[in-house]
Amino acid sequence: MIILGLDPGYAIVGYGVISYQANRFKVLDFGAITTDKDTPFLTRLEQIYDGMNYILDKWKPGSMAVEQLFFNTNSTTAIGVAEARGCCLLAAVQAQVEVVEYTPLQVKQAVTGYGRAEKRQIMEMTRMLLGLDHIPKPDDAADALAVAVCHAHSAGSLASHLKKLGLK
Amino acid sequence: MIILGLDPGYAIVGYGVISYQANRFKVLDFGAITTDKDTPFLTRLEQIYDGMNYILDKWKPGSMAVEQLFFNTNSTTAIGVAEARGCCLLAAVQAQVEVVEYTPLQVKQAVTGYGRAEKRQIMEMTRMLLGLDHIPKPDDAADALAVAVCHAHSAGSLASHLKKLGLK
Repeated sequence: MIILGLDPGYAIVGYGVISYQANRFKVLDFGAITTDKDTPFLTRLEQIYDGMNYILDKWKPGSMAVEQLFFNTNSTTAIGVAEARGCCLLAAVQAQVEVVEYTPLQVKQAVTGYGRAEKRQIMEMTRMLLGLDHIPKPDDAADALAVAVCHAHSAGSLASHLKKLGLK
Repeated sequence: MIILGLDPGYAIVGYGVISYQANRFKVLDFGAITTDKDTPFLTRLEQIYDGMNYILDKWKPGSMAVEQLFFNTNSTTAIGVAEARGCCLLAAVQAQVEVVEYTPLQVKQAVTGYGRAEKRQIMEMTRMLLGLDHIPKPDDAADALAVAVCHAHSAGSLASHLKKLGLK
């Protein structure tokens, strides 16, 4: 099972690609699609969409995991993030990739077993689970890997649960 | 000059296509891309993007006018609207159509000459300016036509202003 974790934005889209088989993780790729602040916003959307298509085509993930978006303020940034996120989701659905959303709480719990874990703890735990020497850079890539791990755990638990029930 | 006015959303994307030449308007098309509430959200994004491409390809507008988005609350609806809007903007930039944003105040002033006009007044004025028998339905299409008229006025004023200055 190849999972693409995503942390969308319009300046940086963090991504992490992992495989998960027999309870073992393997990191295939991680990084970020970045766009320049001096580039017109619409061109940035196009660059993000093209970058997504490149990643989706290269890794052909079975599913994509992404954090749910919450807005607290009437912010232009938030609108831009949601617009970029829409382009990322569009690329995934066009590539017929299943998209699953998780709340920040679900990601924390899945990765650290603790809903009040801090950002650094999540990153460190993600690093350990994935057997990496260092916490991936940029932070957006680390966040993307965390949500991919969250999805692997959820999907894994579901698979073993179904197995117990004799359904799979 | 062919202008596409757009009022994006994820349930309804209102659109209006007008031509504007020698201070005369002609309505070429208006309507809405609609998506079903029982359709998965990601499929709705795809339908909106496909609908946009159909309209852009059919009318080949020189520019697209759209209202700026403002969020007042942390609302799931608002996030969905921005995500759908991102897919609309992506379609436009891919089609190399110039996109211009206007505030609701700019639209009101351009159409009615009065910044505190009510929604109904804007629609009625849009109907008159475009020489239509009835206010277009749905409301989203009427709103889209209003922002197209706003852009025509702005672009028109700019053209005559440049002419006065001997620049065009």
